[in-house]
Amino acid sequence: MGRMGLVVQKFGGTSVADAECIKRVARRVVARKRAGDDVVVVVSARGDTTDELVELAYEITDRPSEREFDVLLSTGEQISIALLAMAIHAEGEDAVSFTGPQIRIITDSAFGKARIRSIDTSRILEALGRKHVVIVAGFQGMDSSGDITTLGRGGSDTTAVALAAVLGCPCEIYTDVDGVYTADPRIVKEAVKLNRLSYDEMLEMASMGAKVLQHRSVEFAKKYSVPLQVRSTFTEEEGTWVVEEDEHMEDVVVRGVTINTSEARITVAGVPDRPGIAAEICGVLAKAHINIDMIIQAGSQAGHSDMSFTVTKGDLPKAKEVLAPVVKKLGASSLTADENIAKVSLVGVGMRSHEGVAVRMFSALAGAGINIQMISTSEIKISCVVDGSRAEDALRAVHKAFETEMAAGG
Amino acid sequence: MGRMGLVVQKFGGTSVADAECIKRVARRVVARKRAGDDVVVVVSARGDTTDELVELAYEITDRPSEREFDVLLSTGEQISIALLAMAIHAEGEDAVSFTGPQIRIITDSAFGKARIRSIDTSRILEALGRKHVVIVAGFQGMDSSGDITTLGRGGSDTTAVALAAVLGCPCEIYTDVDGVYTADPRIVKEAVKLNRLSYDEMLEMASMGAKVLQHRSVEFAKKYSVPLQVRSTFTEEEGTWVVEEDEHMEDVVVRGVTINTSEARITVAGVPDRPGIAAEICGVLAKAHINIDMIIQAGSQAGHSDMSFTVTKGDLPKAKEVLAPVVKKLGASSLTADENIAKVSLVGVGMRSHEGVAVRMFSALAGAGINIQMISTSEIKISCVVDGSRAEDALRAVHKAFETEMAAGG
Repeated sequence: MGRMGLVVQKFGGTSVADAECIKRVARRVVARKRAGDDVVVVVSARGDTTDELVELAYEITDRPSEREFDVLLSTGEQISIALLAMAIHAEGEDAVSFTGPQIRIITDSAFGKARIRSIDTSRILEALGRKHVVIVAGFQGMDSSGDITTLGRGGSDTTAVALAAVLGCPCEIYTDVDGVYTADPRIVKEAVKLNRLSYDEMLEMASMGAKVLQHRSVEFAKKYSVPLQVRSTFTEEEGTWVVEEDEHMEDVVVRGVTINTSEARITVAGVPDRPGIAAEICGVLAKAHINIDMIIQAGSQAGHSDMSFTVTKGDLPKAKEVLAPVVKKLGASSLTADENIAKVSLVGVGMRSHEGVAVRMFSALAGAGINIQMISTSEIKISCVVDGSRAEDALRAVHKAFETEMAAGG
Repeated sequence: MGRMGLVVQKFGGTSVADAECIKRVARRVVARKRAGDDVVVVVSARGDTTDELVELAYEITDRPSEREFDVLLSTGEQISIALLAMAIHAEGEDAVSFTGPQIRIITDSAFGKARIRSIDTSRILEALGRKHVVIVAGFQGMDSSGDITTLGRGGSDTTAVALAAVLGCPCEIYTDVDGVYTADPRIVKEAVKLNRLSYDEMLEMASMGAKVLQHRSVEFAKKYSVPLQVRSTFTEEEGTWVVEEDEHMEDVVVRGVTINTSEARITVAGVPDRPGIAAEICGVLAKAHINIDMIIQAGSQAGHSDMSFTVTKGDLPKAKEVLAPVVKKLGASSLTADENIAKVSLVGVGMRSHEGVAVRMFSALAGAGINIQMISTSEIKISCVVDGSRAEDALRAVHKAFETEMAAGG
């Protein structure tokens, strides 16, 4: 599994927001170093720095060039790395900072959402060899012509995971929560912290609304088998490991329950029942760059059927606009939308080998008097759309039904 | 003289202090471009940015690492180039920004005061070829191992002049004054703006207290024969050209008068008259890194002489400290210092071929009832130390004596 005693630690913007925060991170890094590990630290821009830089750009123009926007934004992380290096020096350890371009984090040229192609580890390994803590600016790289690029939302997580991948070591993501829970502990007080879950489970949890890790960094970790740990900047406790699935993981039926209230349901009713209708509806949405989820086509009645799907609330106005002419053309009877919905999802690789999970979930919702509007399932996930006003009740009811098993898994 | 219609324009921190300032610079650059010139723009950090970054560092530690300090400070200019590029785009012209490292401004590794060794013009020429305005971050470069360096005080001027040197074009330094004057116009209301002066004259003027251009950038311009123009960000008027000396320059006896009140005089009195004394005194000062100016040894009286020289006021305490034991050892009678002095200097390459300049200067001071404490001369400069309280009177008196000639030269 690569080099022993090497770790990549990533600290987000709130962890380096001001001088006190930066000193706290420095002490934490130094403690780890003195415990005998080699440490590579990835940092984000401090607190509100990115917002301030964005504001500067919009004072100049409504449509800033993407290339120059990346030149501007990348300064935020550069400030953080220099300050953290100084703070580590003040604690008496050697440290050296690198921007993305300095360690040749080469990306494609998609400014604002670039993808990492390669990283040159030579300067990092050389500095580690001299017993320096290595500090790398997250979120940034350069393309093959030397232009500065940024990686988009959650980019610092991606930088950290990519570094861990090329260095062959685990990656610790420090954040303001102490791990991944069986459900959002602010809503479900019985929720317990998970010790371990698989990449696929984390991906389902993340896409279902657990905002601890960016989807893309988990995908990256999965692709390169990087063990990830989500843990708190503010405590010494072990966090939650996100790792490759192993044979014991299926012993636990369900890993967690999530809720997502950011979607809206669209229903096209009374669609004539002939081939190609679903393709036509999905086609216009795809052309408008609108992602859809939970597509359900209700069985045919008198040669007509209903088609429902969910989109994010932000995409709803545009979706209605592009669908209106299609609905007319197809001769469908109506186009309706409901923003007041919530999607409650049950996630766990154990579902594959355990039957009856869906039935238990539906019963739990029924027992709480909650009507199910839509259902979709995958190998390791079951999602139900319910009325938005019952969102938290639904989460609690489903969590309660699987609580004992999940706690055993945590 | 290189490429026709190419110019390097440098705008300082006050010229890009906020969005309105940046837009004004953008309009100015675009106007020049549309008039048919290719433009390379060098910018400094916005207004107080550098001070804010310095403050951030000192919140972390009293002794920030020089390497990391440069990583931190260089973000200031990087923000400026991105914003200026966006502002030029908003005016409808193409523009592209480059950091120092991106165009391989290679320096030595003296962090905080690095010297430029080479610049790779390929990306600049390629962008100019595509009819882009090229915007370069001043003050910064990288050393041969890829570490970010900064050039120290006046570094953006140096970047601009160095770029003009490698591109073989003139360099315009935009500032808050509209040129170089025969004397400080705030003190001498008859002072006139010079159209032209030589590098050597500018160097003498700069070192004598005219703060328009950094000494180092003028030296650089002289070394590579870069025609420099100092002009105002706020008006369209031609400024002052600083160029190679030509045969007609000597027609004008005096180019300008400057005053410097930042020095103090030290006198070691009653020094025994034997070889090596001056060397001993200067030696201890040199060892303490104290620059001295205007060394004068008064003629021997009864086997003893007095030695006077000037140092900057900031160096005075240290100078006294290191000299005390030497004075004792040499058996000199006293060590005194006077901070209340002013040095008035007359500068002009025409002095070489015109006699009687010194006499006219001394007479002017005598006519105003001002006593001369020390005199030093070089080929193109005469300096007199006078009582600090008479500084402005001395400046006006000397200016008046040469006014007609200087105005003719202006």
